[in-house]
Amino acid sequence: MESKYAKRMNNIKPSEIGELLKLAQRSDIISFAGGLPASELFPIEELIAVAKEVLQTQGSKALQYGPAQGYLPLREAIGHRMKKVHVNVMADNILVTNGSQQGLDFTGRMFIDKDDVILCESPTYLGAIDAYDFYSPKFVEIKTDKDGMDMEDLEAALKNYDNVKFIYVIPDFQNPSGRTWSVERRKMLIRLANKYDVYIIEDSPYGELVFEGEVTPAVMHYDTEERVIFLGTFSKLFCPGMRLGWVAASAEVIQRLISIKQISDLQCSTIGQRELAKYIEVYDLDAHIEKIKSVYKKRRDVMMNAIVEYFPKEVSYNYPNGGLFTWLIFPEYINARDLALKAMEQNVAFVPGGLFFPNGGHENTARLNFSSMSEEKIKEGIKRLATVIKNELK
Amino acid sequence: MESKYAKRMNNIKPSEIGELLKLAQRSDIISFAGGLPASELFPIEELIAVAKEVLQTQGSKALQYGPAQGYLPLREAIGHRMKKVHVNVMADNILVTNGSQQGLDFTGRMFIDKDDVILCESPTYLGAIDAYDFYSPKFVEIKTDKDGMDMEDLEAALKNYDNVKFIYVIPDFQNPSGRTWSVERRKMLIRLANKYDVYIIEDSPYGELVFEGEVTPAVMHYDTEERVIFLGTFSKLFCPGMRLGWVAASAEVIQRLISIKQISDLQCSTIGQRELAKYIEVYDLDAHIEKIKSVYKKRRDVMMNAIVEYFPKEVSYNYPNGGLFTWLIFPEYINARDLALKAMEQNVAFVPGGLFFPNGGHENTARLNFSSMSEEKIKEGIKRLATVIKNELK
Repeated sequence: MESKYAKRMNNIKPSEIGELLKLAQRSDIISFAGGLPASELFPIEELIAVAKEVLQTQGSKALQYGPAQGYLPLREAIGHRMKKVHVNVMADNILVTNGSQQGLDFTGRMFIDKDDVILCESPTYLGAIDAYDFYSPKFVEIKTDKDGMDMEDLEAALKNYDNVKFIYVIPDFQNPSGRTWSVERRKMLIRLANKYDVYIIEDSPYGELVFEGEVTPAVMHYDTEERVIFLGTFSKLFCPGMRLGWVAASAEVIQRLISIKQISDLQCSTIGQRELAKYIEVYDLDAHIEKIKSVYKKRRDVMMNAIVEYFPKEVSYNYPNGGLFTWLIFPEYINARDLALKAMEQNVAFVPGGLFFPNGGHENTARLNFSSMSEEKIKEGIKRLATVIKNELK
Repeated sequence: MESKYAKRMNNIKPSEIGELLKLAQRSDIISFAGGLPASELFPIEELIAVAKEVLQTQGSKALQYGPAQGYLPLREAIGHRMKKVHVNVMADNILVTNGSQQGLDFTGRMFIDKDDVILCESPTYLGAIDAYDFYSPKFVEIKTDKDGMDMEDLEAALKNYDNVKFIYVIPDFQNPSGRTWSVERRKMLIRLANKYDVYIIEDSPYGELVFEGEVTPAVMHYDTEERVIFLGTFSKLFCPGMRLGWVAASAEVIQRLISIKQISDLQCSTIGQRELAKYIEVYDLDAHIEKIKSVYKKRRDVMMNAIVEYFPKEVSYNYPNGGLFTWLIFPEYINARDLALKAMEQNVAFVPGGLFFPNGGHENTARLNFSSMSEEKIKEGIKRLATVIKNELK
């Protein structure tokens, strides 16, 4: 009964990364493949206390239906947290979502008709490519350098296409490249969005995970015409298993997103939202984030030092100042998909970089995650990976 | 920037029921409007123990990412539970969803191209109308009587339209009508679906909430060609605040739904799924359901007795043997939307029945919920409602 499905189902491609990530979960594998936060840092004792208090004092409300937009004290806490990335936003302008993946899906639903153009960084986040692809857009990749999107290339694309729906960006410690945009580029992005009358989707899971220097103000901080739709998440700052994230945007956009939420799954978990709000109220999320940062920074150091020590000079890489990822570029004749298979034979996993380019190519690149393995394993994994790479060099 | 949105956003109608339900939440209102389970029955102490145990013994896994299809022990427990409705299904054939609303959205996404035909009961569930409407189908309402859909009318529609994607049914204690299908109609539904090669979506939130007699086997029990896609939920049997439900279907359908889950929101809450699985393992969900049933049965009795005692003979009603709702039919000259406003002046709320007909009409009908108010309030509310109705009689 194949033909019984809607046409849009043809837009789901078999997940190439799925099998790899499944393999990478084997305990004998040193995995640089996933984007998993370090589970040994989850605040388990605090969450036991929080669960008990929420159930004891608000049980009948916490287990009942709640508002589609989200639990008000949690939205207030999110509004307060956004000051960390220099954004002032009220609880009314926030929708709680099942992680930022749901923010990606909802913005795709809201904006994309078939063949509409989306502008994105090259490379860009695989989960966004998959979410948006379902709505059949044309992805136009914009060149990037160490400071973010190339603004000339961006303006050329905005001039060239009259059906651009939005510009999708990950300005901080980008997944996959680890790259962070300069302030100047952020301002320029806003100017161009205003000039060409398009929305900006700012996907920001890692903005606060800065290891050196200060948090860079979000693109939304520079917004002058309510064009930025900000996607945030607690997955990397707290834990992903609760599936809680948010969208911050203009009242008009949020109202439409609430309607989508209502017909999609009514609301996020009432109890999950109340537990998270209570945790933020009672405990010190900032201190928790500091702890995460200090662990990830050390792991970043170990990985980057090992890369310098063991990798052949033919491999270039990005040095990330925060987040979870670094990015490798191999000589053009090396195919990272083949390399990933050979690395798996040595029990080391990573994600081939070609997956992060919606229009293909760039098969000589790779994404490495440094947040989820111990320092010892990181060093050993990079050592093994270096040997695999050296065997491929001409 | 209105025109920047995707065309499908025009399919979201302003929610007529939203304002009413908001008002109905006021504590001075006797509300027969929502579909809320009784929050005083939530197993709060048990959930405190469960949360503690899950976090203490599986914390780092419970707060981490998990599989898109859902936590295996929970899927196994769901498979086991489905024996209650006489269905044998393996964990592989189950996807965990954010309540059954997500099952509705996902099946809409999977099947409906613009102008495809969906066959549904008349009336049918408002949440399904809203979810499916987003994908621009044509709803064809099938006549119903006390035993379910009229099979002649169903076959006439199946003959008449060559682009029927599925038949959507709520065979047990239907929302809104309270009506339950006979076994004969269930078998006939399967025969017609086989003959005309269409899927059946069986939405079953209340199948186990039977007050008199036995559970009727699900339509899926009679399925011979894997045409039934079953939507289940823990919202009415356990609590809605955790947002956990499921889809049971053929391996092929489940594989596609997993892909949709992956791009929509990755997965349901890991910790919520593990807590629910632990609850089912350690406690007696069947005993909990028996408790719910005995409370709801008494409330049903109080409501139906009060209707017999106070309502004028011009009002006809359904006598439900389970579930949460009964259904009223007023004389044709009474408009239930106007009546609802007048009832609100007496601090009594209900949902006008016209909302449950996707193609409109039937404004002389109403849905009453009996699960969420105390017996005393039910009696008082029906008394007040009777006075409001009598004032409208010609």
